[in-house]
Amino acid sequence: MLNFSYLSPTKLIFGKDTENQVGEEIKLYSKKILLHYGGGSIKKSGLYSRIVESLKEAKIDFIELSGVQPNPRLSLVKEGIKACRENHVDFILAVGGGSVIDSAKAIAIGTLYDGDVWDFYTGKALPVKTLPVGVVLTIPAAGSEASKSSVITNEDGWYKRSLNIELIKPKFAIMNPELTFTLPPYQTACGVADIMAHIIERYFTTTAHVDLTDRLCEGALKAVIENAPLLFENTNNYDARAEIMWASTLAHNDLLSTGRIGDFASHQVEHEMSGIYDVAHGAGLAVVLPAWMKYTYSRDVTRFVKFAVRVWNVENYFDSPERTALEGIQRMTDFFKQIGLPTTLGELSILDDRLEEMASKCTNGGTKTVGNCTKLNKEDVLQVLKLAL
Amino acid sequence: MLNFSYLSPTKLIFGKDTENQVGEEIKLYSKKILLHYGGGSIKKSGLYSRIVESLKEAKIDFIELSGVQPNPRLSLVKEGIKACRENHVDFILAVGGGSVIDSAKAIAIGTLYDGDVWDFYTGKALPVKTLPVGVVLTIPAAGSEASKSSVITNEDGWYKRSLNIELIKPKFAIMNPELTFTLPPYQTACGVADIMAHIIERYFTTTAHVDLTDRLCEGALKAVIENAPLLFENTNNYDARAEIMWASTLAHNDLLSTGRIGDFASHQVEHEMSGIYDVAHGAGLAVVLPAWMKYTYSRDVTRFVKFAVRVWNVENYFDSPERTALEGIQRMTDFFKQIGLPTTLGELSILDDRLEEMASKCTNGGTKTVGNCTKLNKEDVLQVLKLAL
Repeated sequence: MLNFSYLSPTKLIFGKDTENQVGEEIKLYSKKILLHYGGGSIKKSGLYSRIVESLKEAKIDFIELSGVQPNPRLSLVKEGIKACRENHVDFILAVGGGSVIDSAKAIAIGTLYDGDVWDFYTGKALPVKTLPVGVVLTIPAAGSEASKSSVITNEDGWYKRSLNIELIKPKFAIMNPELTFTLPPYQTACGVADIMAHIIERYFTTTAHVDLTDRLCEGALKAVIENAPLLFENTNNYDARAEIMWASTLAHNDLLSTGRIGDFASHQVEHEMSGIYDVAHGAGLAVVLPAWMKYTYSRDVTRFVKFAVRVWNVENYFDSPERTALEGIQRMTDFFKQIGLPTTLGELSILDDRLEEMASKCTNGGTKTVGNCTKLNKEDVLQVLKLAL
Repeated sequence: MLNFSYLSPTKLIFGKDTENQVGEEIKLYSKKILLHYGGGSIKKSGLYSRIVESLKEAKIDFIELSGVQPNPRLSLVKEGIKACRENHVDFILAVGGGSVIDSAKAIAIGTLYDGDVWDFYTGKALPVKTLPVGVVLTIPAAGSEASKSSVITNEDGWYKRSLNIELIKPKFAIMNPELTFTLPPYQTACGVADIMAHIIERYFTTTAHVDLTDRLCEGALKAVIENAPLLFENTNNYDARAEIMWASTLAHNDLLSTGRIGDFASHQVEHEMSGIYDVAHGAGLAVVLPAWMKYTYSRDVTRFVKFAVRVWNVENYFDSPERTALEGIQRMTDFFKQIGLPTTLGELSILDDRLEEMASKCTNGGTKTVGNCTKLNKEDVLQVLKLAL
């Protein structure tokens, strides 16, 4: 086990009707906020009115910025920064899923920075201060509500880049599973894939002796696997929605990374796909993960056997670890199919004409590798993408 | 799943040599601290010198109060409160295990309270402010380093009472598994039992649909079960020590309670035992837990079957759930024996002459019940204790 420092400072307020507490929570930080969200769905569902009501009761002024898209755009972030400065806003409330939260985090650091906020995403600068951010979560997927990550897409070249820093963890996240009842099946499934990827990419490590976090990863995956299919039988299944929502946060608040180094190659490869093709992130992951596994499993068959046996209840063929490992990968792939996700690039209408470009972007023109268990160079990434065709 | 609010504000600094960071961490809060610890073991091991060195480097003054005993005493807490007030101390550093930390928490709230600090433990008053507390952990067991609990024993009547409130969670905990190499085998084993009890008492719940936390509890228990025996083969096994140390914190920082209500009857019954007989808390738990299980399993056989199969790998005898359940309880009992713990009151030299007194104290003279899955009245507690003879 490696040395680590772990702090999860986000207050998680979980359960029915909890969105009505949002005004009271914000009162501790601010009297004037930016209310940041996506499209009209929060108005249609009545969530918008309940939040506005709660803000009014707590005597909190707000301005609004809507229009966050999946793969949130830098241009909107810049619009938000301008609005915050002009209106002397000192708190950002994100109402939505990972895209809205990531956009809110970017606005929060950008408002207090004199330079171009994109500097933080290219590694040109490190943020040292931020406005506080609060969250009302409506899509369990990205785990951004308690994570140190923000992923933004720069339309100028369609670069999708991430920032990872403790500073940007939200102050609180309000999580009512009922708010996810209206999520369409495909979006629900994409969220499940994202959650599973966050756990799986922490699970695959070269760090030895990490039994406790191994077991926690396996347990979290099993809970997702047993509950996700229930969401498609009955979209209003509160308990199953609650399990998935709670898993989304724990999958990405770094608890499952403590003392180990994971392998986020699949996420990085997928970012290039969704950056160029604007596919749903979770769907992209359901395509990349099986391909990444098939390409890399032979470098550490033992861990893939453990994954197959403990997570997917595969029979352990002791005399053929390879067979056990491959059956685990197959079960995962079948699971993604079962919940309605694509598992090939073809199903996402992605042909083979831009694979090279993706591999190149992902490895910074072939100058760096991605991943940890297996460090993938440009050629490796290309092979992974070909396996995903 | 029930509604919940979860916040774990303690910064956990885990790994080799981390005790040398203690001065830097405290600097954020204080220039004058109380250094609180037990006996001379931290001097013998050299830990004391390293801490003093780190404090000096960070220019932090300190006064000392040593002499904390297992089942920490109210009288020493009061001595600490007096010393903090007289010396204008505004931070308490606990160096030790649960007893030292619990004592430090009590001093921290008592210093800022005009009344008798025991009021907080009898429920007569609620603390509203506290000095900040930091921890250098040397015994993985109580989980007090990141918990909201403090348990103090009042020598006047030998009442052992606990306070549970978010306010008293430490600011940071430094956890170096190497510091636990010198723990004697019996103390190591007692810690393991305490850790397992914290998980088990959260696991046994009447709350339905708590799959994720079930899985996390099962995973944490499995990691403890696979690593604990290694500590007795080689006391300097860093990786196994690390797994147990990390488990001790996660077992009791309330992550595993999220959305569910556990059953802490065993802890409450044991508190009366260790209050009267001054036995090691973990040893008391290894005695009470099997008895509590035997007395209550028939009220929810399904959960005990789950415990047996998932945690202890018991064969599921589908046609005889009772057999499966009992085999799980037996495996746990055997495990405690294997690591050198008593599993009967007799082995702790506790006879049957004061069982009634313990049952009475535990239930406040028969006026309240303890536990949740099965609410135990005085007669029930007496029966549990008899099963433990």
